[in-house]
Amino acid sequence: MIGVVGLGYWGPNLARNFAELGRLGWLCDRDEALLGSVAGRYPGTRATTSFDELLAADDVEAVVIATPVPTHHELAKQALLAGKHVLVEKPPAMRAPEIDELVDLAAERDLVLMPGHLLLYHPAVRKLKELIVAGELGDVLCVYGNRQNLGIVRTNENALWSLGVHDLSVILYLLDEEPSEAVAHGRDFLTDGVEDVVFCYLRFPSGKIAHMHLSWLDPHKMRKLTVVGREKMAVFDDMELERKVTVYEKAPWKRTDSYGEWQTRSGDIWIPKVPTDEPLKLECQEFLRLIAGEGDRRKVAEDGARVVRALDKLTESLHG
Amino acid sequence: MIGVVGLGYWGPNLARNFAELGRLGWLCDRDEALLGSVAGRYPGTRATTSFDELLAADDVEAVVIATPVPTHHELAKQALLAGKHVLVEKPPAMRAPEIDELVDLAAERDLVLMPGHLLLYHPAVRKLKELIVAGELGDVLCVYGNRQNLGIVRTNENALWSLGVHDLSVILYLLDEEPSEAVAHGRDFLTDGVEDVVFCYLRFPSGKIAHMHLSWLDPHKMRKLTVVGREKMAVFDDMELERKVTVYEKAPWKRTDSYGEWQTRSGDIWIPKVPTDEPLKLECQEFLRLIAGEGDRRKVAEDGARVVRALDKLTESLHG
Amino acid sequence: MIGVVGLGYWGPNLARNFAELGRLGWLCDRDEALLGSVAGRYPGTRATTSFDELLAADDVEAVVIATPVPTHHELAKQALLAGKHVLVEKPPAMRAPEIDELVDLAAERDLVLMPGHLLLYHPAVRKLKELIVAGELGDVLCVYGNRQNLGIVRTNENALWSLGVHDLSVILYLLDEEPSEAVAHGRDFLTDGVEDVVFCYLRFPSGKIAHMHLSWLDPHKMRKLTVVGREKMAVFDDMELERKVTVYEKAPWKRTDSYGEWQTRSGDIWIPKVPTDEPLKLECQEFLRLIAGEGDRRKVAEDGARVVRALDKLTESLHG
Amino acid sequence: MIGVVGLGYWGPNLARNFAELGRLGWLCDRDEALLGSVAGRYPGTRATTSFDELLAADDVEAVVIATPVPTHHELAKQALLAGKHVLVEKPPAMRAPEIDELVDLAAERDLVLMPGHLLLYHPAVRKLKELIVAGELGDVLCVYGNRQNLGIVRTNENALWSLGVHDLSVILYLLDEEPSEAVAHGRDFLTDGVEDVVFCYLRFPSGKIAHMHLSWLDPHKMRKLTVVGREKMAVFDDMELERKVTVYEKAPWKRTDSYGEWQTRSGDIWIPKVPTDEPLKLECQEFLRLIAGEGDRRKVAEDGARVVRALDKLTESLHG
Repeated sequence: MIGVVGLGYWGPNLARNFAELGRLGWLCDRDEALLGSVAGRYPGTRATTSFDELLAADDVEAVVIATPVPTHHELAKQALLAGKHVLVEKPPAMRAPEIDELVDLAAERDLVLMPGHLLLYHPAVRKLKELIVAGELGDVLCVYGNRQNLGIVRTNENALWSLGVHDLSVILYLLDEEPSEAVAHGRDFLTDGVEDVVFCYLRFPSGKIAHMHLSWLDPHKMRKLTVVGREKMAVFDDMELERKVTVYEKAPWKRTDSYGEWQTRSGDIWIPKVPTDEPLKLECQEFLRLIAGEGDRRKVAEDGARVVRALDKLTESLHG
Repeated sequence: MIGVVGLGYWGPNLARNFAELGRLGWLCDRDEALLGSVAGRYPGTRATTSFDELLAADDVEAVVIATPVPTHHELAKQALLAGKHVLVEKPPAMRAPEIDELVDLAAERDLVLMPGHLLLYHPAVRKLKELIVAGELGDVLCVYGNRQNLGIVRTNENALWSLGVHDLSVILYLLDEEPSEAVAHGRDFLTDGVEDVVFCYLRFPSGKIAHMHLSWLDPHKMRKLTVVGREKMAVFDDMELERKVTVYEKAPWKRTDSYGEWQTRSGDIWIPKVPTDEPLKLECQEFLRLIAGEGDRRKVAEDGARVVRALDKLTESLHG
Repeated sequence: MIGVVGLGYWGPNLARNFAELGRLGWLCDRDEALLGSVAGRYPGTRATTSFDELLAADDVEAVVIATPVPTHHELAKQALLAGKHVLVEKPPAMRAPEIDELVDLAAERDLVLMPGHLLLYHPAVRKLKELIVAGELGDVLCVYGNRQNLGIVRTNENALWSLGVHDLSVILYLLDEEPSEAVAHGRDFLTDGVEDVVFCYLRFPSGKIAHMHLSWLDPHKMRKLTVVGREKMAVFDDMELERKVTVYEKAPWKRTDSYGEWQTRSGDIWIPKVPTDEPLKLECQEFLRLIAGEGDRRKVAEDGARVVRALDKLTESLHG
Repeated sequence: MIGVVGLGYWGPNLARNFAELGRLGWLCDRDEALLGSVAGRYPGTRATTSFDELLAADDVEAVVIATPVPTHHELAKQALLAGKHVLVEKPPAMRAPEIDELVDLAAERDLVLMPGHLLLYHPAVRKLKELIVAGELGDVLCVYGNRQNLGIVRTNENALWSLGVHDLSVILYLLDEEPSEAVAHGRDFLTDGVEDVVFCYLRFPSGKIAHMHLSWLDPHKMRKLTVVGREKMAVFDDMELERKVTVYEKAPWKRTDSYGEWQTRSGDIWIPKVPTDEPLKLECQEFLRLIAGEGDRRKVAEDGARVVRALDKLTESLHG
């Protein structure tokens, strides 16, 4: 069975999904009132305020960690040491050495270590990946994300960590490369040391580049990812209801008779129907599959580490 | 009278405007056929293939330079040395020392040296400036430009110089500061050494920041400038026909009773009517006013130099 | 206390709101399972499958009817005869004589008869009314609604009754007149006798006109109402998240020096912030206010009757 | 050679196109100044203020009529009687008997009588026709046009004749049927007897329906035509620059296992690249082809008559 730890904002959603999948066994939170209120919805589920008790339970095969970010690394480490598979909310750690430690622990014990990068299970992101892998877009040149809004102003986490982690996980998933260069710029306008606006530039060994524009001080509400390929371009716009993915037959083009001069061509635009499956359900199912021995659990852990390493590099650049 | 030099793409528009203002006296281009065809439209105007002849003409008070970019500095210098006022297409020079030389020359001789930053005469940009100066937006925190398109692929000038010069001139005009930090990243995908995609980050002594996203390999057609103020936000979208400027009552907000926590508030949105005057006509009129001794000719020259210096810094960062 | 009758689709929302307002006393539905499931959420509330028992209860001051449309008239009539105030879902009756009978009954007994026209309590509709009453738009010339979608295909109710009732209630509320002419055209493509696409034209004694385009076979998703005034125009677009109401300074215009020729002028566009209050809560509060003797209960009943009479006229035109 | 009559607003465009096609022989206008100014651009072309002289000229094979609407019928009649082929601006006549007379005259003499319905030569309209003919949309159920704007307020021609003629020609072209029912409603707000806002409903023998919403007193700028098919839906939006035609996989749908209940399904959206050819050039080429004996000249004349007959019917309904 699965034990869900941390029942504040996101934990109850994870609990609900594992319950629907018939695998929710334990709930854990230090706050007794919160614990009681969530546990009331799942009769037959055990509840505890003690993480140790959870780890000691024989029927707990895997632990899902949805506690505050600074605790992720320590709790995930304890769970792995106790021999439990781990699904941990993003980011699983805040520094590169910490995530590397977790990845090593999981590898030694052959346990699942899966970070909760929800967007990777979004059908629109899967569609982008599919288009890239099938060669539909040609060589990918550039990927860039816009995550802007007049939104929740955070005071404990800057825009890079609270907004950028989403786009970064997708960018690295789509390109499947680790950046050789990672530069960030931005400013803390409202709270000292917490950047409200951040711009990130990434360059990859293959020559591809990526960019992120992150801000919670913006008049536009944007959650958009653009992929520029040499043959076609594709956009994932999460603010659209029906038009999540758009594929443009737009490309630079060298006419044989134009003496090597670059021109451009524009053709059809195509908006494929994208399934409306709930990403969180797909994420939970993937975790269960990995536990069951399907899929490549090493790759999932390593992909998660790649995101933390890039965030770490970008943070150094931002503050350096 | 005015003499217009360079009758390729843009020169004829300048000629037409000065003709309509009753001030076109001379036309000059090395290409005799081109010269003849344009001159045919303006009976009573003198035409020459010799720049020297133009400079030697007593009735030529001012010279308008619309030749290829690499010739701007040299031609402008000769014109100033010949005692002529100069309106020179952007950028007036490609390196900081060159523009400084021109500014000094103009200052010594008390001549007008005006760079042709067309967007500065766009009524929508004027409206943004007006809003900022009147304090309507509160302190400006961040300005960013998006100039993206699947457009003309240049092979002699990168996206920074061919696209970025527009936004940069507006950003510096709006903020009226010289950047203390100017960083650029990008890549040359199509032609070696010519960046198709460029991202620029600027930081100013006041703490304000700016950003430019420049690309001619993009599925979106964007010509947009966003100003984030502490009280309101404003957007100039040049792809809109009727809604060039939008002002958002959106801002971070600290409730007195929220113990110092930042929140946000959203109010009305306002789309002021912006005049539809042709920017080029306004630019030409401004040049005539400066010649006539109105306005601050030193400031105009110095503002132009500021743009070149920033471009130079960004270029160093991009290639460094 | 309030008794809510009919707990299928909409009734539970009404029950929830009256519970939140501390006034839910009874729940009534013929389906025992349904009744039990809803009643379980409101301890202390009485539940019955018998409408007669509800009407006989002394503590029931008012009845809220959310049963299938064909039963509205009969149930409302019984409730009024039993001396209860009535809030009845739209349309309260399907023929003009039926609604007139209800209005008369309510008037004789001085009871509240309020139809559940939800949109009348939408803050954006209130804003339109406010603009009209304040004379901001000048004389209103024309109002038209677009309610189109590829939506639920109904087989028992045509587009006029299932979609048009919304727009019609708003149009009559805004113009506060009874149409002198009401014409409808349309076709039943999918189910015999049930029009999927309907166009309605209304003309009012004052000379104002109105139109409705109603369809559930449409590629566009529109829920929009446009008001054309002689001085300004205003649009309520319910598909927008943040821009529910837009006011355009657009109008025909006769220049004094143009010898009586009509021209047009366009000025600012203004998107006022509209409160995000839940319309259903406002509707329920209004019902309680009317019961408490505030407001004009006669007008509310009569306004509801006006809508049914217009629907009846349009139906005759459609089928005649 | 071709003779163009009427050189006010539209005539010069026709003259330019026939000149480019090498067929412009004569120009004719009563206004000598106007005639001279246009003729100046086409050396070698003959100019006359006399329509009779034009008709008497042996080298004039065909006449293009771009004079004010009320003169169309009479001038076209004279030209046909003089044995000339005729391209006449829309509408070629204002009453059904008049157009029937012209069609008969042309048929007797085997002359071309082509009305200048520009939109029929728009590549986007051709694409819609192609989709319909190929069966891509399934059976067409409904076509509707929106032509709204705050535009030129006319005082001599109502919205039906000045705006509706465009959409009507396209609707009849797409459906290739003559309406069995044609109803119009609207009002004259600004000039007595000249309707500013008109709604038209058409029903065809096949059961298809059509609608037009026409207005020059509107805050929205719309030039849109929507085709609802039983399998797919298509939209031509002439306000879009790049997305003129959009095809939606949206349709009502009867699942075999749903006991005959209607549901809906939504699939991909497709925006085919539409050529950017100038419609007027295509129209002029079509006229030359018809003169040369290619295509079906009878059908072209008859199609034009169908539009006038429908306009006549709608006018009767509007004023009746």
